[in-house]
Amino acid sequence: MQNPTAAMLVIGDEILSGRTRDSNMHHLANELTKYGIDLKEARMVSDEAEAITSAVKALAATYDHVFTSGGIGPTHDDITADCIAAAFDTPIAVRDDARAILQAHYDRSGQELNEARLRMARIPDGAALIDNPISAAPGFTLENVHVMAGVPTIFQTMVASILPTLTGGAPLLSQSLRVERGEGDIAAPLTALAEAYPDLSFGSYPFSQNGIYGTNIVIRGQDGVQLDQAMTALSEAMNT
Amino acid sequence: MQNPTAAMLVIGDEILSGRTRDSNMHHLANELTKYGIDLKEARMVSDEAEAITSAVKALAATYDHVFTSGGIGPTHDDITADCIAAAFDTPIAVRDDARAILQAHYDRSGQELNEARLRMARIPDGAALIDNPISAAPGFTLENVHVMAGVPTIFQTMVASILPTLTGGAPLLSQSLRVERGEGDIAAPLTALAEAYPDLSFGSYPFSQNGIYGTNIVIRGQDGVQLDQAMTALSEAMNT
Repeated sequence: MQNPTAAMLVIGDEILSGRTRDSNMHHLANELTKYGIDLKEARMVSDEAEAITSAVKALAATYDHVFTSGGIGPTHDDITADCIAAAFDTPIAVRDDARAILQAHYDRSGQELNEARLRMARIPDGAALIDNPISAAPGFTLENVHVMAGVPTIFQTMVASILPTLTGGAPLLSQSLRVERGEGDIAAPLTALAEAYPDLSFGSYPFSQNGIYGTNIVIRGQDGVQLDQAMTALSEAMNT
Repeated sequence: MQNPTAAMLVIGDEILSGRTRDSNMHHLANELTKYGIDLKEARMVSDEAEAITSAVKALAATYDHVFTSGGIGPTHDDITADCIAAAFDTPIAVRDDARAILQAHYDRSGQELNEARLRMARIPDGAALIDNPISAAPGFTLENVHVMAGVPTIFQTMVASILPTLTGGAPLLSQSLRVERGEGDIAAPLTALAEAYPDLSFGSYPFSQNGIYGTNIVIRGQDGVQLDQAMTALSEAMNT
């Protein structure tokens, strides 16, 4: 059975200018792998409406799930919610349930729910809210798109609350072997193994460490027994 | 004058499975910012021919330059060169100039230029080679696509040799201000400033550090005088 597929969309000028190094995609990749959802593509776009909307449309039409990060704060460049609504041709306005969550949060902290903060209660019609236990402003799920904050700690809690609501597949298992030989030396036996085990994927990652050159070979798949067999065959091939 | 635009395409299952955290996109983003080329989009796709070819076509048609990393080694999953050739409908085969570079390299190290390694001499017709001082196997430029290795040290040397051959624009300058106030408090004055300086971009990045909550505000633009004026106005607005 095929696992569900997913894409990630990272939104924000700060990633593309090099100011910030994205960590959300790497976190999501690891969580989805454990959960049995295959991350097939990631895109990073700037805070421009046309770029966000067209990426959301393309990814939502291609994959089972789309996860976004960034652009749901209170400032003028936080336009993700409006772009998601536009991508699905759905009305968007300040919603009472989201406003109530923000009002309670700012009442507790003695701050004002001003016009800027109220922007964070703009949620498309029909979207389900995603809980934000850190700073209250919710994410949301509309159709197959899960819209989350860019701040890594908040993104991570939102991912943790969303994943159990999705249907995962078989987790991707992996085994790896470190050999002190170059990729060019092991390419032929690796190709033979990849042909013998078409349900598994074989990756090779060259390294040089303290003057030693070698390759990490990683076998991935959903069938643990096949994986064991392939790893045994690989070890034998590398020792000959 | 508009700066040239660029996109990055990161190729490889190891990024999307979470095994490896990409660093090439972050490196390229910083180099392009210094050089005055605007990185507008990044995509990460797996080692699948259709995914690579369609991403290359879409990005090459949209941006002035496309930079790729990954998939040009000797193993069965290194299919980037063939995908680039397919995207531009260009013939590809082992090319004499690339073969000579590899032959000299392996002669020096006493290794055999076997069939797997010879795959790295497959270069599309009409492409210009990109020098690889570390492990010899060259990258190449075909049309507006620059094809480079995924190993970070090699990727970085290839970027360093490619950038001086491109026409850059005005480098993007930036200034930042740290304020101990939440984004919701500063959103209104920030919006007013962004409207007053339409040629500059204003970003705000919330942080929490040792129990202190605040926001880093970054102003970016090509005109240093305008940037100074805007920063002065921002500082005044934040002190009132």
